[in-house]
Amino acid sequence: MDQHAMDRYIKSMIKEAGHRIRNSFLSDISVDTKAHANDLVTNVDKEVEQFFIRHIREDFPTHRVFGEEGFGDNIEELSGTVWLLDPIDGTMNFVHQRRNFAISLGIYEDGVGKMGYIYDVVNDDLYHAIEGGGAYYNDERLMPLFETAINESIIGMNAMWATPNRFVDHEATIRLVHDVRGMRSYGSAALELAYLASGRIDAYISMRLAPWDIAGGMVMAKEVGAVASTFSGGPINLLESDTFVAANPSIHGKLINEYIKPKHP
Amino acid sequence: MDQHAMDRYIKSMIKEAGHRIRNSFLSDISVDTKAHANDLVTNVDKEVEQFFIRHIREDFPTHRVFGEEGFGDNIEELSGTVWLLDPIDGTMNFVHQRRNFAISLGIYEDGVGKMGYIYDVVNDDLYHAIEGGGAYYNDERLMPLFETAINESIIGMNAMWATPNRFVDHEATIRLVHDVRGMRSYGSAALELAYLASGRIDAYISMRLAPWDIAGGMVMAKEVGAVASTFSGGPINLLESDTFVAANPSIHGKLINEYIKPKHP
Repeated sequence: MDQHAMDRYIKSMIKEAGHRIRNSFLSDISVDTKAHANDLVTNVDKEVEQFFIRHIREDFPTHRVFGEEGFGDNIEELSGTVWLLDPIDGTMNFVHQRRNFAISLGIYEDGVGKMGYIYDVVNDDLYHAIEGGGAYYNDERLMPLFETAINESIIGMNAMWATPNRFVDHEATIRLVHDVRGMRSYGSAALELAYLASGRIDAYISMRLAPWDIAGGMVMAKEVGAVASTFSGGPINLLESDTFVAANPSIHGKLINEYIKPKHP
Repeated sequence: MDQHAMDRYIKSMIKEAGHRIRNSFLSDISVDTKAHANDLVTNVDKEVEQFFIRHIREDFPTHRVFGEEGFGDNIEELSGTVWLLDPIDGTMNFVHQRRNFAISLGIYEDGVGKMGYIYDVVNDDLYHAIEGGGAYYNDERLMPLFETAINESIIGMNAMWATPNRFVDHEATIRLVHDVRGMRSYGSAALELAYLASGRIDAYISMRLAPWDIAGGMVMAKEVGAVASTFSGGPINLLESDTFVAANPSIHGKLINEYIKPKHP
């Protein structure tokens, strides 16, 4: 399947999955917790991941799937074609708000991001990117990011990281909160990366993200010139959870050099 | 004009104002600052306020208007009918994101909230409330808020208030950040109040809000049973800026008694 056909196939599958998610609002949703009391998962997360996997296994039997809910393959390296999938990124929003969550999907070949998709299900807004072919918001091409400065930036970050925590020196984060134009927190890494790629926020910072949270967004970010790294400036490892900062290229260096001080670099 | 006719009149005016705001995206928007570098105002805020005032003065010559941009009346008390208007609540989002801002309007008679409107312009989502007649999201009636608990709540608040500041003891705010299920920050008081009324967040907290930021949302909040007060638990004064907490009634008392510690009560 060539890339254009593949793109059409993926969009069609994502829209169908979105339809299933919107339909789920009509029936009861059962909510469980995972690693801790605020780490939520629902039957819908699981069903949507299985829906994707069923189609991918049937139509691309040699591809592997790395999915948040664990119905995919046991991925220990990224050779070949791997689909990194979060069926509902922002499950807390899904449960409490019935909005502000997304389907997040990245297609990687031998570890290189080829295609990325973030679907804001309730607003029916689809962001996508093709490596070397640009990033798009509902098929409108997104412009390369404009130069900006810290004091004119809006940063997506949870308030937690400006309070004492085990990941970063919160005093440095507090300086960031005071130096920027504004802080926002939306509760979905995928949507915040789509916002970054659209120039609506200028950076997104998180202490712990999993590969499926960011795989789609990283392809998108790269196409508009955004830079993504761990807090120590290293490359993102798509096999395990790690710290994460993606930013407009004109502020990425300053963020990691002056404002983000990891405790265990 | 009876209340139903008035409601239709207001909705029609708000939709027309929304249309003008969306059209403004097609031309250059000029941005100025007000009280400080991050307190933004644009020509569109001003033009939209003037649009409303022109119509209100023509059709309701005895009514007065209290508007953010100062084109209305000099309001020192709330006798008679007063329209409290923020033409664009969330101007920073308007400038940087072209979304996530709202028209906010409250109609008060002798200081009592009679009608409230919050219009999410880009999503074309209109929230409204009529005193004693309920609150609505696009004409779908909003339910009274369900009972909740702090550890199952999502709170709307800027990260700034978990850092050292002159308004509250930030150590208490930090405990709040750690005790709740999630923190969010959207950058528009009016939208966050609409979210509270819709049960999508369980409280909204801010150190300094002006009457026009909250006048519409307060009518809406009351109709679903939410409670609004200053940090010290006193009533909201719609003549000047003050601290503000609006919350699900099952957590409002706990918020002000245990988590919000004003420095100058």
